[in-house]
Amino acid sequence: MIFSSDNWAGAHPIIAESLVKASTGFASAYGTSDLDRKVEKKLSEVFEHDVAVFFVGTGTAANSLALASANKPGGHIFCHREAHVNVDECGAPEFFSHGARMAPVDSENGRMDPAKLEAEIKRFPPGFVHGGQPMAITMTQATEAGTVYGVDEIDAISSIARHYHLPLHMDGARFANALVTLGVTPAEMTWKRGVELLSFGGTKNGCWCAEALILFNPARAAEMHYLRKRSAQLFSKSRFIAAQFDAYLENDLWLDLAKHSNGMAERLAKGIEASTSARLAWPSGSNELFVILKKTVAETLQKDGAVFYDWPVPHQLASSVTADEGLYRLVTSFATTDADVDAFLKRL
Amino acid sequence: MIFSSDNWAGAHPIIAESLVKASTGFASAYGTSDLDRKVEKKLSEVFEHDVAVFFVGTGTAANSLALASANKPGGHIFCHREAHVNVDECGAPEFFSHGARMAPVDSENGRMDPAKLEAEIKRFPPGFVHGGQPMAITMTQATEAGTVYGVDEIDAISSIARHYHLPLHMDGARFANALVTLGVTPAEMTWKRGVELLSFGGTKNGCWCAEALILFNPARAAEMHYLRKRSAQLFSKSRFIAAQFDAYLENDLWLDLAKHSNGMAERLAKGIEASTSARLAWPSGSNELFVILKKTVAETLQKDGAVFYDWPVPHQLASSVTADEGLYRLVTSFATTDADVDAFLKRL
Amino acid sequence: MIFSSDNWAGAHPIIAESLVKASTGFASAYGTSDLDRKVEKKLSEVFEHDVAVFFVGTGTAANSLALASANKPGGHIFCHREAHVNVDECGAPEFFSHGARMAPVDSENGRMDPAKLEAEIKRFPPGFVHGGQPMAITMTQATEAGTVYGVDEIDAISSIARHYHLPLHMDGARFANALVTLGVTPAEMTWKRGVELLSFGGTKNGCWCAEALILFNPARAAEMHYLRKRSAQLFSKSRFIAAQFDAYLENDLWLDLAKHSNGMAERLAKGIEASTSARLAWPSGSNELFVILKKTVAETLQKDGAVFYDWPVPHQLASSVTADEGLYRLVTSFATTDADVDAFLKRL
Amino acid sequence: MIFSSDNWAGAHPIIAESLVKASTGFASAYGTSDLDRKVEKKLSEVFEHDVAVFFVGTGTAANSLALASANKPGGHIFCHREAHVNVDECGAPEFFSHGARMAPVDSENGRMDPAKLEAEIKRFPPGFVHGGQPMAITMTQATEAGTVYGVDEIDAISSIARHYHLPLHMDGARFANALVTLGVTPAEMTWKRGVELLSFGGTKNGCWCAEALILFNPARAAEMHYLRKRSAQLFSKSRFIAAQFDAYLENDLWLDLAKHSNGMAERLAKGIEASTSARLAWPSGSNELFVILKKTVAETLQKDGAVFYDWPVPHQLASSVTADEGLYRLVTSFATTDADVDAFLKRL
Repeated sequence: MIFSSDNWAGAHPIIAESLVKASTGFASAYGTSDLDRKVEKKLSEVFEHDVAVFFVGTGTAANSLALASANKPGGHIFCHREAHVNVDECGAPEFFSHGARMAPVDSENGRMDPAKLEAEIKRFPPGFVHGGQPMAITMTQATEAGTVYGVDEIDAISSIARHYHLPLHMDGARFANALVTLGVTPAEMTWKRGVELLSFGGTKNGCWCAEALILFNPARAAEMHYLRKRSAQLFSKSRFIAAQFDAYLENDLWLDLAKHSNGMAERLAKGIEASTSARLAWPSGSNELFVILKKTVAETLQKDGAVFYDWPVPHQLASSVTADEGLYRLVTSFATTDADVDAFLKRL
Repeated sequence: MIFSSDNWAGAHPIIAESLVKASTGFASAYGTSDLDRKVEKKLSEVFEHDVAVFFVGTGTAANSLALASANKPGGHIFCHREAHVNVDECGAPEFFSHGARMAPVDSENGRMDPAKLEAEIKRFPPGFVHGGQPMAITMTQATEAGTVYGVDEIDAISSIARHYHLPLHMDGARFANALVTLGVTPAEMTWKRGVELLSFGGTKNGCWCAEALILFNPARAAEMHYLRKRSAQLFSKSRFIAAQFDAYLENDLWLDLAKHSNGMAERLAKGIEASTSARLAWPSGSNELFVILKKTVAETLQKDGAVFYDWPVPHQLASSVTADEGLYRLVTSFATTDADVDAFLKRL
Repeated sequence: MIFSSDNWAGAHPIIAESLVKASTGFASAYGTSDLDRKVEKKLSEVFEHDVAVFFVGTGTAANSLALASANKPGGHIFCHREAHVNVDECGAPEFFSHGARMAPVDSENGRMDPAKLEAEIKRFPPGFVHGGQPMAITMTQATEAGTVYGVDEIDAISSIARHYHLPLHMDGARFANALVTLGVTPAEMTWKRGVELLSFGGTKNGCWCAEALILFNPARAAEMHYLRKRSAQLFSKSRFIAAQFDAYLENDLWLDLAKHSNGMAERLAKGIEASTSARLAWPSGSNELFVILKKTVAETLQKDGAVFYDWPVPHQLASSVTADEGLYRLVTSFATTDADVDAFLKRL
Repeated sequence: MIFSSDNWAGAHPIIAESLVKASTGFASAYGTSDLDRKVEKKLSEVFEHDVAVFFVGTGTAANSLALASANKPGGHIFCHREAHVNVDECGAPEFFSHGARMAPVDSENGRMDPAKLEAEIKRFPPGFVHGGQPMAITMTQATEAGTVYGVDEIDAISSIARHYHLPLHMDGARFANALVTLGVTPAEMTWKRGVELLSFGGTKNGCWCAEALILFNPARAAEMHYLRKRSAQLFSKSRFIAAQFDAYLENDLWLDLAKHSNGMAERLAKGIEASTSARLAWPSGSNELFVILKKTVAETLQKDGAVFYDWPVPHQLASSVTADEGLYRLVTSFATTDADVDAFLKRL
């Protein structure tokens, strides 16, 4: 009954096996091996677009490098207030961008409200140096609230990005989870919508350590090679990431794993909705559920071995959560089983 | 006949196997799992000292974080001119330390000459703000020239560090190779000599991706947690590094692998010394050889499938290398075989 | 009728004269001249404390260096949302501190509410690396809203700073204006309250370019010399700043100038309160007034030659400002005359 | 007999007077006043080119901002080893450029040797990320050795800059001194030669504090406004710099002052050459002389009140300076008089 985070899971056997297979023999280092090239090519096929691929070690690295590539002095990066870049990266985007500032947009349920986003951007009119200048927009798909932007919602954000000449970055730590929910192609969720830079995450979805920064405009790749190396993210034995992605993308394993973890979340959601002691705080579109429970119920569950985190109650929910209730986050993963879910629901 | 670099090898089977074993089950993330703790404890035992351990993704990250922790405005970092931090990290130490400057010491054969080191430090007298201030000393063991500092030579460097109140960092990308050459304990090569920060490398010696920054003064660890996280080097599934180190340290595998690669280098060295068409540029103490060959010989070898790199001829060798000769680097690894070496020597 | 800003004024004649007097003769450079030393000593007397003084060129430099000296990776700097460091310095604090983040506290009328400040600090519990860590508190005196913290209010802030081991910085761009309003000594408004670092501004109060960063703990001065030099704020002919401060502090000129500009603001405030077409948005304690006017009235005044800025209406005022009204800022200075004020009031 | 530095002098009376004249009245702040505009226009006339002008507080700021505008990750800035940016700015160029590295070129007498410069650039071939990438070339005119690049020598440097697509910056801390020596126009010494960015110094030549960063390509100005503001170099009462430059440029005062200080250096040089106890280390082309004296003679002169600095003996001079001799730097300024020079020569 581990619902604490999808990164508490290890690696999927097929991915582990691919890594073992790649462990023998010699291969040129620093991202130049045949396997690196093969996976890069595969990603161009997956995205139906000529892409530049940069393997890195963490999602934070992918996000920070993407934002750093858009760097401007006195720059503001627009994001949802609860975005991982804003609350969970210990200032990495600021560090990588030499002090750009996160400009949080307050919107409900993890998705930036386009009107609020635009209002925030307008606070920094061109040429008024005192306040700094807009620099980039970043959105998370699936969001940190477990919700998913619809394609029209991505369009709304990207039309603002275009209007203000701001690059649009997508933090895809749970890209696959969103993709299978929307039922669209990778292209339809990214460059066809105007996304320019993508943090393509494999780690939360069954890899050990496989993250790729994907540039839909390969012309921007020349500088990125130096940005990545300078930030200590160019791996000598880069094929250990390539091998994971190789298996991840083969035979749509990545989509199957995402379907599985989303399915586990759905099963959990149904059980919760059917129960009298719990309810969903808002509908989920991925493998993360936010659940309102009586605090005593939560404690009992945790004592019984269920692992999940307390979560701060957002303003908009304040009036609908009573004093003896709490908000909790439950995350499923490729490794979650029906038995895990059912054991939890039974105790509930 | 791959002698290009030890990072062209993959992972040793025991390490790959350990990783597979660790791939199942749930474990808490971000370096807090039982396996992380176990390996940290093991490293304290290996070093006979209470150490703080920070797993990171690359040697460049370990080096840069070590130096960043000593940060001073206008700071100078003293290193050998050929040090990896000075010539192969694309400005990562500068980036992590917000613009500290590398102060290269010109010395022969990869080892800093203590007198030259001290002369360089003296260029920045206390309180003279225009030139900046000394900040740290970093030495590589084994060096980039394949040589090894003796324990008395480490003492000489560290007594300068102490005298000028500078932290002493050791880049141990090839730590094990030096250790088995000297035949001393890890403690005797580090904190007993005055080394305060160590980049403990596993990648070049049989791991996929296993680097640890080791602090011999755990009191300095508090800030390092933030430095590491901020530079995107805290891995969610940190156990994938821990699992590699677990196998690496178990039953002295790491020492056996180093002995093997050093042995391969020795075998190669002996064959070269016995040949008429090649000679060693200087004696090696690790798994790297620098060899003077007729350019035509080198080209023939390369055509025959031997892979190794040309190397710039250092000043002190200029007069002893003729116009039709070149300098070449040969690196062995845990994966080098007698057959590889003998095939090379036979062609030579 | 120039009420746009106190930095639209030039320099007071006594200060200009002092500079001319200092223009002849030779003096050692980079802050080491007798005049530099004399003024530093004078400041220790003014503050009744042994202080370290760093002349710099702008208030932004003083603020940014103060904050940079408290630097921590992933650091958060707590300030009022409308603080100059947060809205008017184009990311300078972030740049100088290598990416620390401003953590704005929403409080009314320019003064941080201690409870809200503490709640904000508590969002970053020790050791939780993901969110970063508290690093410093900065308060502005007089505030950007023209108000002034009482000594007890400074105490409330500084007791929080002490509790969380955070250095307390005061942005004193309008230090003198606040001081004469409170009627306390410089010591009573700073180190006796727990302020550790002070940006002591002379520019807005009759100097051309005279700002000093004052450290009440001179032990912190050693690093600051390097921080200042590295940020290009060490002036070769430093005596041109010293000469301004020399005249500024002599015979309490600085206090007289502040009393004058505050008096002009009071005269303006009284006239506004007596009028039917204007009212104060909130009471002022310095030389800045925030005034609610009918937009048509404001436009007429501006057409008639009055110069002052529109100001965004803060949330808490939203309900008390009608659609045909606007908020405007009026700033007086040492150069404002009774005639200026009366001309404005007459037109009003 | 003050020959320590041209920044030990104060301000020329005409410049001081201009500043007093500008001290009255109101003027819009932050570089937008009529006087700012007037001086900017004047500079376009002086340079016979449409230029973007950025007033800053120090030469270090102008240099660092110029280099920061050319910023590249892992970037190398090529300069003479003795360049002010390399030895006297405490890491400011590194700080402003987020960790770019100075790549010193060893050449005699302050002027970079084009062949050595190119050899240094070639060390960083395109696309080889490990070593970083070339980013900018900076040259000082007049040089730190008191010499002056001829126009053909500037051409030689700038043709290398063009070939490698590197922006060429000129540190003109003693621009006027070089200009009057060459007897060319400002245009002929800068953009007509291929210089793109110029630090135009007034401080050493009779101003208090007047430095301007001049961009010959105004298209690069948009970002510079933010870079300058972010580094705390945008002065609120910017007219105090403008007023100095206004007088400086009027009626060729700047050229007259440079002719005077160069003339004083010449008078000094002639006397030294005529003496038996001193000789020039190399010929000067500006207001700086490097002189070889018996140490006992130097000490006697210093005891008698002459102020000048010891200087490290460069390698190329080592064999021609005896053990009882030393190298000394003598600098003249607008404030040096015939009497000063003659008093010194008499004692010599």
